[in-house]
Amino acid sequence: MRKLLLQLDSSRLPSVFDRVVAYDGGADEVMSYGGITEPDVRDLIHGCIFTRGPKDLKNTAVFVGGADIAVGEQLLTAATKAMFKPFTVSTMLDSNGSNTTAVAAVAKMVQATGDVRGKRVLIVAGTGPVGIRAAGLFAKAAADVCITSRKADAGERARDLVLKRFGGTVRAIAMPDAKEAIRACERAELLLNAGPAGVMLVPKQAWASRPGLKVVADVNAVPPLGIEGVEVMDDGVTKEGVVCFGALAIGNLKMKVHKACIARLFERNDLVLDAETIADVARELMAPKS
Amino acid sequence: MRKLLLQLDSSRLPSVFDRVVAYDGGADEVMSYGGITEPDVRDLIHGCIFTRGPKDLKNTAVFVGGADIAVGEQLLTAATKAMFKPFTVSTMLDSNGSNTTAVAAVAKMVQATGDVRGKRVLIVAGTGPVGIRAAGLFAKAAADVCITSRKADAGERARDLVLKRFGGTVRAIAMPDAKEAIRACERAELLLNAGPAGVMLVPKQAWASRPGLKVVADVNAVPPLGIEGVEVMDDGVTKEGVVCFGALAIGNLKMKVHKACIARLFERNDLVLDAETIADVARELMAPKS
Amino acid sequence: MRKLLLQLDSSRLPSVFDRVVAYDGGADEVMSYGGITEPDVRDLIHGCIFTRGPKDLKNTAVFVGGADIAVGEQLLTAATKAMFKPFTVSTMLDSNGSNTTAVAAVAKMVQATGDVRGKRVLIVAGTGPVGIRAAGLFAKAAADVCITSRKADAGERARDLVLKRFGGTVRAIAMPDAKEAIRACERAELLLNAGPAGVMLVPKQAWASRPGLKVVADVNAVPPLGIEGVEVMDDGVTKEGVVCFGALAIGNLKMKVHKACIARLFERNDLVLDAETIADVARELMAPKS
Repeated sequence: MRKLLLQLDSSRLPSVFDRVVAYDGGADEVMSYGGITEPDVRDLIHGCIFTRGPKDLKNTAVFVGGADIAVGEQLLTAATKAMFKPFTVSTMLDSNGSNTTAVAAVAKMVQATGDVRGKRVLIVAGTGPVGIRAAGLFAKAAADVCITSRKADAGERARDLVLKRFGGTVRAIAMPDAKEAIRACERAELLLNAGPAGVMLVPKQAWASRPGLKVVADVNAVPPLGIEGVEVMDDGVTKEGVVCFGALAIGNLKMKVHKACIARLFERNDLVLDAETIADVARELMAPKS
Repeated sequence: MRKLLLQLDSSRLPSVFDRVVAYDGGADEVMSYGGITEPDVRDLIHGCIFTRGPKDLKNTAVFVGGADIAVGEQLLTAATKAMFKPFTVSTMLDSNGSNTTAVAAVAKMVQATGDVRGKRVLIVAGTGPVGIRAAGLFAKAAADVCITSRKADAGERARDLVLKRFGGTVRAIAMPDAKEAIRACERAELLLNAGPAGVMLVPKQAWASRPGLKVVADVNAVPPLGIEGVEVMDDGVTKEGVVCFGALAIGNLKMKVHKACIARLFERNDLVLDAETIADVARELMAPKS
Repeated sequence: MRKLLLQLDSSRLPSVFDRVVAYDGGADEVMSYGGITEPDVRDLIHGCIFTRGPKDLKNTAVFVGGADIAVGEQLLTAATKAMFKPFTVSTMLDSNGSNTTAVAAVAKMVQATGDVRGKRVLIVAGTGPVGIRAAGLFAKAAADVCITSRKADAGERARDLVLKRFGGTVRAIAMPDAKEAIRACERAELLLNAGPAGVMLVPKQAWASRPGLKVVADVNAVPPLGIEGVEVMDDGVTKEGVVCFGALAIGNLKMKVHKACIARLFERNDLVLDAETIADVARELMAPKS
């Protein structure tokens, strides 16, 4: 029986990225739908759960993606709501790679730091999907999280989203541009740039040899990179007293996590892979083999 | 050479149900198109018939689906019109599962009754795709068919559609709600509820121990079920002197018929599977193995 | 690792023809997108190039199609622009079969004629995708090309497109209908009808036994055929002193070329298959096996 992945994408054109990774992660066929809104979900899910017997339903799974993480969360909720035991299929949420990228960045940073409870974490330009998920994962791990944004209101909205979904301790501060980075970064112990591709937001003087700062990470892979002096392939190298992670080092782990999650979806029919459960998958992948 | 199924769906999003069954029925790849209207069909069919040689065309087939059976019939007609010998591919019409569900319900009822010529058949809430196809199959088998509907005009339209497509003897009566069921059902020898999910239309007193009534069947699988006292798994059990078929017993046969039809599409390149020919497939599936 | 073909189609419904040939040419999965415009391309291509490592990228490829060759050229340009070494995938342009059909027709005609440098080539009704590509291939081979069109301005636009893309010597003349064909054809040494299906444009008296005329070819497979007296299966037969090629003879080679091109896409990750490079593939296919 073939492994079928239903791709529900909130964007008009269903993500090619997610389709390719679905195939490489073990889906035999991908049924791709773009422009999906909440009212569409019920019938599409019923097409999954009423076509195969309960013991075969682990061979059908659902992947929710698209550019908008808020819509993605709605679609995931609608999908799980349309199922009932034993007619369930496993589902995964990864709008624009937000969960897998955030999980990979946070996992690298936590591995370099150890316990992050009470640690001050700065998420630079943290109002997008990756920033919000990363802030949430740190908040859930009891870190003291601060999100920066160019405009104060965007930061506050992001903070509210994180608190509502993950709880914990999260603040928001405005950091209009790279010139303000020194002040914004001065108390951080962990620093993650979640800003847009091709924009340098953290100049070297804001992080190099900064007392207290243990680790910096950047998800921007397009030059100019987000953290001046951190290269895309940096994978735990210590520079100026700080452990550095670049976008490709994080991206490589992200791809492994994404593919492993697709494979997991087809192992049982009741998995819901969202930020925390995807983080569990990353931890297992990174655990030393005994 | 791979078996390719072209899914032409009149609804915006091509049915996931039909895609999954297509894979499970033996299609190697499904090419899904939603929002299809009549003018689209010709070019899509030409893409099927002009890409492989006549002797290989049995490896390409067309499935017409969608919520609207009237549009489905138009698409099927347009599809067969766009072909010419020897450049033909097999086609199947099953808008919203109407043909396969109706065939499964009728086949169960006929098996329990024997010859239905001249028998009085009542199709409760028979104005939808399943009701119309079931009424047509009974009319074609020379039964004396009566369709009920909440409103008289909907029933008359359904009756006209059945007569135009299948011929035979068909009447329509209004049955506004379950309270009217006793009177509506009083002369029926076979009774099929084709009404919507989650609506009880035939209370127990309308059918239990009714002289002359031989068999009742219900396609509503969502509680409250359509015929009070008939359970979803009832598969020919006699209750109150009447042979009963529930929605899952019918649904199981429907799935077998649907999959078998998909498999048949790829055995030759000139099959047209619509109500009557799908009924033939069901009869073969139900025939005792010699 | 599966061979994935991204089908970018400028028409609303991605071509079924191209999907079937993609499967038959060796793609394991086809990711089909319709209604694609230039701004969509970058993200879709990034989904191809950022999901697999450079050494695996030969297993992903892009096919650009659709009814409009001008849009197809824009999409191809946008696709190659979105790539950078070593993150490239092979791409092919064949809007409405224009390249493969033109290549097949021209290859047959050249094989029958030998060197076409300086030869007078007439492309009847040459303003569509096939005519423009065929004119371009002849112009590139240094023939003296003339395009006919019903209306003068359409011919001039086509001539300009050919000159801009291929260079060479190209003229345009008006040929309002079949009655004008005798005069239009009188100096031609090679004649190709690229006109619409079901329209006879070149009566027999315009070509039969015409001194100087060496070869005629027709891509219209639907009666009435485009060149009176040339049958669809004619494959180099001499009639009235002229070597004749019919639409199915050309179509058979076109299918072979199309499939071979799909297969080539997956041999390396930096191929761009457009008119000239597709012509190279045809030449290899037609070369005598040593």
